[in-house]
Amino acid sequence: MREIFKRIDKIAFEGKKSRNPMAFKYYNPEEIVGDKPMREHLRFAMSYWHTLTGDGTDPFGQGTLQRPWNELENDIEIAKARVEVGFELMEKLGISYFCFHDRDVVSEAATLEETNERLDIITEYIEELMKKTKIKLLWGTSNAFSHPRFMHGAATSCSADVFAFAGAQVKKAMDITHRLKGENYVLWGGREGYETLLNTNMDLELDNLAKFLKMVVDYKKKIGFEGQLLIEPKPKEPTKHQYDFDVATVIAFLRKHGLEEDFKINIEANHATLAGHTFQHELHTARINNMLGSIDANQGDLLLGWDTDQFPTNIYDATLAMYEVLKNGGLTLGGLNFDAKVRRTSFEVEDLLYAYIAGMDTFAKGLKVAFRLFEDRVLEEFIEKRYSSYKTGIGEKIVQGKVGLEELYDYALKLNEIKLQSGRQEMLEAILNSYILEMD
Amino acid sequence: MREIFKRIDKIAFEGKKSRNPMAFKYYNPEEIVGDKPMREHLRFAMSYWHTLTGDGTDPFGQGTLQRPWNELENDIEIAKARVEVGFELMEKLGISYFCFHDRDVVSEAATLEETNERLDIITEYIEELMKKTKIKLLWGTSNAFSHPRFMHGAATSCSADVFAFAGAQVKKAMDITHRLKGENYVLWGGREGYETLLNTNMDLELDNLAKFLKMVVDYKKKIGFEGQLLIEPKPKEPTKHQYDFDVATVIAFLRKHGLEEDFKINIEANHATLAGHTFQHELHTARINNMLGSIDANQGDLLLGWDTDQFPTNIYDATLAMYEVLKNGGLTLGGLNFDAKVRRTSFEVEDLLYAYIAGMDTFAKGLKVAFRLFEDRVLEEFIEKRYSSYKTGIGEKIVQGKVGLEELYDYALKLNEIKLQSGRQEMLEAILNSYILEMD
Amino acid sequence: MREIFKRIDKIAFEGKKSRNPMAFKYYNPEEIVGDKPMREHLRFAMSYWHTLTGDGTDPFGQGTLQRPWNELENDIEIAKARVEVGFELMEKLGISYFCFHDRDVVSEAATLEETNERLDIITEYIEELMKKTKIKLLWGTSNAFSHPRFMHGAATSCSADVFAFAGAQVKKAMDITHRLKGENYVLWGGREGYETLLNTNMDLELDNLAKFLKMVVDYKKKIGFEGQLLIEPKPKEPTKHQYDFDVATVIAFLRKHGLEEDFKINIEANHATLAGHTFQHELHTARINNMLGSIDANQGDLLLGWDTDQFPTNIYDATLAMYEVLKNGGLTLGGLNFDAKVRRTSFEVEDLLYAYIAGMDTFAKGLKVAFRLFEDRVLEEFIEKRYSSYKTGIGEKIVQGKVGLEELYDYALKLNEIKLQSGRQEMLEAILNSYILEMD
Amino acid sequence: MREIFKRIDKIAFEGKKSRNPMAFKYYNPEEIVGDKPMREHLRFAMSYWHTLTGDGTDPFGQGTLQRPWNELENDIEIAKARVEVGFELMEKLGISYFCFHDRDVVSEAATLEETNERLDIITEYIEELMKKTKIKLLWGTSNAFSHPRFMHGAATSCSADVFAFAGAQVKKAMDITHRLKGENYVLWGGREGYETLLNTNMDLELDNLAKFLKMVVDYKKKIGFEGQLLIEPKPKEPTKHQYDFDVATVIAFLRKHGLEEDFKINIEANHATLAGHTFQHELHTARINNMLGSIDANQGDLLLGWDTDQFPTNIYDATLAMYEVLKNGGLTLGGLNFDAKVRRTSFEVEDLLYAYIAGMDTFAKGLKVAFRLFEDRVLEEFIEKRYSSYKTGIGEKIVQGKVGLEELYDYALKLNEIKLQSGRQEMLEAILNSYILEMD
Repeated sequence: MREIFKRIDKIAFEGKKSRNPMAFKYYNPEEIVGDKPMREHLRFAMSYWHTLTGDGTDPFGQGTLQRPWNELENDIEIAKARVEVGFELMEKLGISYFCFHDRDVVSEAATLEETNERLDIITEYIEELMKKTKIKLLWGTSNAFSHPRFMHGAATSCSADVFAFAGAQVKKAMDITHRLKGENYVLWGGREGYETLLNTNMDLELDNLAKFLKMVVDYKKKIGFEGQLLIEPKPKEPTKHQYDFDVATVIAFLRKHGLEEDFKINIEANHATLAGHTFQHELHTARINNMLGSIDANQGDLLLGWDTDQFPTNIYDATLAMYEVLKNGGLTLGGLNFDAKVRRTSFEVEDLLYAYIAGMDTFAKGLKVAFRLFEDRVLEEFIEKRYSSYKTGIGEKIVQGKVGLEELYDYALKLNEIKLQSGRQEMLEAILNSYILEMD
Repeated sequence: MREIFKRIDKIAFEGKKSRNPMAFKYYNPEEIVGDKPMREHLRFAMSYWHTLTGDGTDPFGQGTLQRPWNELENDIEIAKARVEVGFELMEKLGISYFCFHDRDVVSEAATLEETNERLDIITEYIEELMKKTKIKLLWGTSNAFSHPRFMHGAATSCSADVFAFAGAQVKKAMDITHRLKGENYVLWGGREGYETLLNTNMDLELDNLAKFLKMVVDYKKKIGFEGQLLIEPKPKEPTKHQYDFDVATVIAFLRKHGLEEDFKINIEANHATLAGHTFQHELHTARINNMLGSIDANQGDLLLGWDTDQFPTNIYDATLAMYEVLKNGGLTLGGLNFDAKVRRTSFEVEDLLYAYIAGMDTFAKGLKVAFRLFEDRVLEEFIEKRYSSYKTGIGEKIVQGKVGLEELYDYALKLNEIKLQSGRQEMLEAILNSYILEMD
Repeated sequence: MREIFKRIDKIAFEGKKSRNPMAFKYYNPEEIVGDKPMREHLRFAMSYWHTLTGDGTDPFGQGTLQRPWNELENDIEIAKARVEVGFELMEKLGISYFCFHDRDVVSEAATLEETNERLDIITEYIEELMKKTKIKLLWGTSNAFSHPRFMHGAATSCSADVFAFAGAQVKKAMDITHRLKGENYVLWGGREGYETLLNTNMDLELDNLAKFLKMVVDYKKKIGFEGQLLIEPKPKEPTKHQYDFDVATVIAFLRKHGLEEDFKINIEANHATLAGHTFQHELHTARINNMLGSIDANQGDLLLGWDTDQFPTNIYDATLAMYEVLKNGGLTLGGLNFDAKVRRTSFEVEDLLYAYIAGMDTFAKGLKVAFRLFEDRVLEEFIEKRYSSYKTGIGEKIVQGKVGLEELYDYALKLNEIKLQSGRQEMLEAILNSYILEMD
Repeated sequence: MREIFKRIDKIAFEGKKSRNPMAFKYYNPEEIVGDKPMREHLRFAMSYWHTLTGDGTDPFGQGTLQRPWNELENDIEIAKARVEVGFELMEKLGISYFCFHDRDVVSEAATLEETNERLDIITEYIEELMKKTKIKLLWGTSNAFSHPRFMHGAATSCSADVFAFAGAQVKKAMDITHRLKGENYVLWGGREGYETLLNTNMDLELDNLAKFLKMVVDYKKKIGFEGQLLIEPKPKEPTKHQYDFDVATVIAFLRKHGLEEDFKINIEANHATLAGHTFQHELHTARINNMLGSIDANQGDLLLGWDTDQFPTNIYDATLAMYEVLKNGGLTLGGLNFDAKVRRTSFEVEDLLYAYIAGMDTFAKGLKVAFRLFEDRVLEEFIEKRYSSYKTGIGEKIVQGKVGLEELYDYALKLNEIKLQSGRQEMLEAILNSYILEMD
């Protein structure tokens, strides 16, 4: 297996003038940006599923991707080969983290017990390679949506047995994540939603989901897992309505059930846009609610209505995302997981490398642009001045909660003319462009 | 003015066989449905703005609607004529409630003081006609979005003076609503949102919005207004992002600021779909959070991306909406406000009547279908059975919070096969059709 | 195999008062509507793929559907079982037509030759059952999109070998369709489109597609196939841009290449809405261009951005579709193919029946409503009057092409006031409702 | 009036390092790109309506923009002031072309005759300033959508009088355009579409539209106007369905009526995306049909569902648009008209300049990137290689139309394995990024 990338050297940083598609133009891991190297700002992670498990199947066609490791004789062999290929790829790319679902790592066996034994075997192998390579686990999670038993949901299934099974699966995935010193554990409710309200008790389903999350919190404490718990919003796929629609919906839910201190949010670009928001909006919303946990870095196609999970190559989105990360003081335990897949027409193994390089370079450049914007305070100063009326006088009193409608009424009666300032959107967009285009 | 509808008699109920477009086919106000007459279930309201003020202007063209009352000589004359026309229309249609923004009633004068004097004059005239006709005020609100001063928002403006002005305006609108014994007071944040994050302090803006709402709550108590306070969500028009995106977002916001007991939600069909939800979803979400306050009955066009505010004629939406209302035990202080406008090509005064008749009949029929569905318990029984596994055994323990992941793990290890039931979506849709199509 | 539906009797018409979900409420095949029985108006067809081949797999999960026939030992056994199940199902439902792709019927073998031998075996078996049951083939087609070789397209592939292979496949599918006396042959360009313009020669691809269609036309003549050739538009799935975007795009393409006399259009409801049009719009556009060929009857979810292929249960859409069919003088060789699949949570075999019943009843009722609307000429008369100014005077001259801009200029200078009539949209929507809701 | 921009100097090119928002960073009009200066590649035009007439009104609020010239005493004064301001602005920006609708130039009077007299007065004034400044008219057009008489359409109105009036208006607009030596005449069917099919005779309306276009062609010849005739597609605003949905729909229509030689297409970025296409797709489609006429340069917001007409600042879109223009051999008579408006919160006159600078710089940079991409042939070579199988063997025969399905069948039977090449989308996107980000 370790032959697969033999023809490819470790990807080097060659700088922006390079024409070599197998080299980084912007991602220079040790380059210091502000107070730390790029790799610490970015904390890139490989997604196990799209990178090692996926085969390019889509609703209209069979798998196309050349993934020789998935054609081995038995499930354990395949699982081990995936480990090897994955670590080799991460080393070639200089990626320090990975993320996985339990079922990416090894396929399900006839019984839960047997499945868990398989998981233990592969976990041990992963652990070994982690030691050897210093590569770390960004987060683990459980796939409680692909198997037919989850057709009606997992924690929100109409079947208590399915709920129980999901609980058992999450317990094991948390155990493994803990063993591998994962820095986060993610809950993505792949089937937590409904197909039609005609057959749904949404109230019970959501209460059960809260119960489930409480069990996760309790179990985290019990086993002493010190990573972050993360929830990942997504609006409308695969179910007609997914409960964790967007950041605001997740916050509403967590607050209702008193769970807002226990979870942070893992935000995916393509899920943001499917919910009708920009990526930046979702990051920003989480940030000002102190709930920005981690990022699934990809991009969607706004003219298509499903999760295309493309590798991120849009410099605007990467810049504005990194701007939010910088304003957040970094991602602490979180990272940038490439929840992205090569197009099914990019079927060669090389395409995996081209794609990761494209994504890493885009975010490296985005980081540099964002950092300069942030450091120059060009937006910050504009904003500060724009809201300066809340620093003194009636504005200060409003912010301090010292006035009511009657005081405002008296004040307004005496107002002559209200002076407004232009929002200068076009000028600010041009400034953003000049930061993106002009920098070294 | 009262000549306008002279050629039209009071609209009569003629039953479903009638071919008279100026008659109700389904809306029979005194017909008992369950324990009360239709009119009490439906609590229809006329929207002042679309019905009396709007002229058919759109972004590509001038007003088209024949509204002779808006062509009188001065603003006070126009305002009085609107009152007369509005009450005449409500009487002709048998509508018992109306809703207004302060600026629908009478246009703004040079100063706030003068504007408020105008408001007092017209309020008195409205009060007089309310007494005469027994028509009541469902809700009042303030238009803090049309005037240029609100270009950057009202409670979320970057200008403290604008915030103050908005506060003064809301105070006055609450005073009037209270005087007219309005049953609710609505806050719709027409410009509460942002155009670009490049120039926005969203954190401050949202905190200010919360401050504003607290002032409203305080002032409500101070003046002894016993109506409901309502917030109306809308996602993305007129600003690029409106803060009150959808029901879940509003709930997240209210809970963050401890305001969840003080407000209920006013849900508009077209706003639901612009946010990517069905109308029923938004009603349902509010209901199970005990926050369903009132309804803006209209319909959008799902192939168009703006608020078309069409009169509701879709029987599916009306049925499912009324189903949620019945499950909510009715709307108590809320009602069904037709926040709907005739198409600009339906420019004659008669079209206003055809449109209201269409909307009222659709909801009357929807109520009847929903009531029979509800009474037959056909959906309820299906759902109860579907979730019955949570009544006993492991399901009961889950619901009671008596088990954790470890107990679920042990339980799942022993599970042999999980039996699932079909969701039967197609059968349920056929049942819904047979209730809609078969009934008398 | 023929045991599968043993527990289910032939579905009977029981009328609208029936509460039996395994009975028709509206579809009464021999009931005369106008000049012919319902079944001749509707010409329902079973889709082989969704009904017999599909297993409920979606991008996030494995198959869920109970389809025992797909679990037999080898491909030929499975293929034969599908034939048996399909004919049994059609007989139970009283459906007289079916539609298939070559690869639905039997899976591909190692070589094209072997694959075609398999096809011959199953074709013979189908032929036998067709004779026995009098069930007919509405249309055949070729699946040139699922196999990995078609990843870049078939007739628009960048590989000439793939183009050739697709041609060979279509030849065989046409042969089979001809042998089975299919009434139409459909071309759906499942992968005819592009993923990114960065790597695409769209001009060459479209010219090649035209070449391909010409070969189809030539071969049709050669073998004496007298059925209709049909093209099916779809906008943006599975490729980022599908060439046959919508009816207008297909017409532009056919006209450019002089093929407009050789093809008609097969219109699918869900494809219409993905292109931003109503189903009725696409039917209407094809009709007035004399290109309405056949219908794929299903429905989408306008809040979701992919082809959900739901069974059609919306009475508005069915009514307006049948209205277009009636105005077209029927579908002649075309029919109503249920290109629809049960939800993956409707996993029991019974759900297939519930779903077909729902769809057939919806279109039966739609036909009856449409027929009465059509017969009463209520819309026709409104429209005739609305455009009456083109029957005389300047309007007549315009229609006859007898005036130019200068004559219009002189005419307009003398015009005093232009009298317009209201479009009455709300009244017309209420009339449509009363036809739908009031009829026996 | 000519005082308005007194405080602003002619905008200078200062290069990419400049931080002066009132300077060009990329647009250097005389800089040679390939064989001609930037200004000849770009042929920028000012849009009269958004720049001089628009006031920031939106469906939820009154005008906000400070446009002192629109506050003068009478319509003629206003119209003259607009001319002065417009020419001053173009001179300050170094823009050489403008575009107008008849009704932007001067508002309508009581009669058509009087309106035309007004037009003559202002046309003369424009002519004078054109001579003085060497600024030219890119195109003229007629606004046959804003006045209430056009509520049902103009050439597709149900009223023959309205059709006639529209014809008269277009005659006059063509006369003026001709007199001012306009290089193109545009037809944008602002209300050519329908609100509901329930009241529409689409067949007649489209035939009338074709009649109208034929009159335009005839009149063009009659007066010896040698400019291009252009049609501008747009899908779904202001009517529910606009007939000129997208490029393909326009082509279908023109071909049906034999008008394909008489018109080219004016493509607007925001209209493309509202139709579900990329801007590049629409340009590309027009180009390969030899119908790319001119460009309305703006940008939309893909998360909003209406025509936001923003100034274009996205470097990807500008680059790919200019790539199509270069492949087209330039725009010949066409140009880049900024059909864009400042946000209503960018209310100061300065914002107009910031906005034009942003747009012009974005397209200047886009031109440079596109030119280098084009010159390096990096995409061209990839594409040539990708389709090389059509240069020889079976591929060549396919292209030459020398084979039929039978030959392909025989060929395919002998095919062993089909070798495919990766589409390399991710690598190509990274290359595009490196061209955008790396260039000087």
